[in-house]
Amino acid sequence: MNLSTRPLFARVALLGMGLIGSSIARAARVRGGLAGEIVAHAKTGRTLARVAELGIADRIESDATLAVQGADCVILCAPVGAYAELAATIGPHLAPGAILSDVGSTKQSVIRDVGPHVPPGVHFIPAHPLAGTEYSGPDAGFAELFENRWCLLTPPPGTDANCVARLEQFWRGLGSMVSITDPAHHDRVLAIVSHLPHLLAFTICGTADDLADETRQEVLQFAATGFRDFTRIAASDPTMWRDVFLNNREALLEMLARFTEDAQAMARAVRWGDEAYIEDKIRRGRKIRQSLIELKQA
Amino acid sequence: MNLSTRPLFARVALLGMGLIGSSIARAARVRGGLAGEIVAHAKTGRTLARVAELGIADRIESDATLAVQGADCVILCAPVGAYAELAATIGPHLAPGAILSDVGSTKQSVIRDVGPHVPPGVHFIPAHPLAGTEYSGPDAGFAELFENRWCLLTPPPGTDANCVARLEQFWRGLGSMVSITDPAHHDRVLAIVSHLPHLLAFTICGTADDLADETRQEVLQFAATGFRDFTRIAASDPTMWRDVFLNNREALLEMLARFTEDAQAMARAVRWGDEAYIEDKIRRGRKIRQSLIELKQA
Repeated sequence: MNLSTRPLFARVALLGMGLIGSSIARAARVRGGLAGEIVAHAKTGRTLARVAELGIADRIESDATLAVQGADCVILCAPVGAYAELAATIGPHLAPGAILSDVGSTKQSVIRDVGPHVPPGVHFIPAHPLAGTEYSGPDAGFAELFENRWCLLTPPPGTDANCVARLEQFWRGLGSMVSITDPAHHDRVLAIVSHLPHLLAFTICGTADDLADETRQEVLQFAATGFRDFTRIAASDPTMWRDVFLNNREALLEMLARFTEDAQAMARAVRWGDEAYIEDKIRRGRKIRQSLIELKQA
Repeated sequence: MNLSTRPLFARVALLGMGLIGSSIARAARVRGGLAGEIVAHAKTGRTLARVAELGIADRIESDATLAVQGADCVILCAPVGAYAELAATIGPHLAPGAILSDVGSTKQSVIRDVGPHVPPGVHFIPAHPLAGTEYSGPDAGFAELFENRWCLLTPPPGTDANCVARLEQFWRGLGSMVSITDPAHHDRVLAIVSHLPHLLAFTICGTADDLADETRQEVLQFAATGFRDFTRIAASDPTMWRDVFLNNREALLEMLARFTEDAQAMARAVRWGDEAYIEDKIRRGRKIRQSLIELKQA
């Protein structure tokens, strides 16, 4: 038995074929050796039809229970708010020994929603590839999406180490770097790194949209660099982000509270002309940017 | 007399040679016909020495009063907080008939700080090119910075129309689109389009930096798209942005207050699981993004 002739997984079922699901399908095919067969399921016929047109899966399956049958790796790629129902539906049909994973941006909620539906003998290993763009849908995916990006695995205590190693190998095969972390810690870090920035971006777009008509027109006309970067973030998928916010509620609200305190302190410094305070905050921003560059994540 | 042989201005003096000043110098030279001679002044000898090395000005001048002598166009390119002192210094040395302009991100403060030092016979026309990057200093400039970007002029009532037309021609010559607007309106629009986004970006970097050491390390390690875009904004020049915040205080604080109300409303929706509210806000962000793309500013 040789890895070069036998793929890592005989059949990978992807439930959800948006940006992430369709990128996994593309990357697995381009890179080879990872999936003998890729079965794609999506909630809407329209998405499935488009996946068929794109030809990025070996088989499309409108029935999720049929999609997972016989698959030794099943990956939930739907918005996290859909996981509970999806897991309840597919749970009884998962193959013994299969790995059940996901790509959701929140991990404690996934363990809460999916965990109870995982039958004995199925290995549940939540995962989160830190990769994405502001586009969504099966056309938005591309094979290089995961290259040199982190994928975080949050296996529950006692998970079979060989299965964790196989899933890690899968993500490394897609081009990712892999790290194993605690789900609560994951949710806290992601709240400040990703979820709060998106919440702020959506909010400022709304604030601008509420301005008087004349001003709003000029806001659009004169949108400078700062606002354009915000709107790029803000153009992401509404359902996915709604679900992320609601499923990482505690950490997100805590980070927002910290941020709001800091923003109010900055407002006070601006009001009272505290030059040293303002400069210090700006310099810290530059320092963080510099650290990011040094970590080659910039 | 022919424009092809005689430049628009015989001598342009640039006071400040950072990103914007050095880009004006480069663009004027590359595009031609705009400045017979470019005189560069900067506060520090280090910047001036670098400008000399780069060879982007015809003459460098460490004394601002000598830099403006005989110039028919003088442009302040320093942080706006330095304008009052700079204007007081150069005012008595400005040539009769000269145009005095600037590139500052706030316009009411510039009129307040510079206006009183403008001698009779000198034409004061504040300007603001909506162009920039997160880099600063003379090496950061490039000749294409202003291409297809707006430059806003805010001439005081009664300004000589021919002089406004000449300055407009200068900016169009640098590649910009030009619009004439009211200074108070300018400050309000820029507060939401640019100043508030930068304040939020600086703030979130500080919030992240305050996290416990272990989390902070992972924040840097796993910085996802959202945070990276924020830090890109946040890496801008500290002195420039400190001055912008302090010199557009009222509009910035008003926009921050509106934004904070909106962020709190979003926090409440997250806490209470108001899916419709969250989705609506996200969709508005997408709508604004779409409008930006349609206006070809994206």
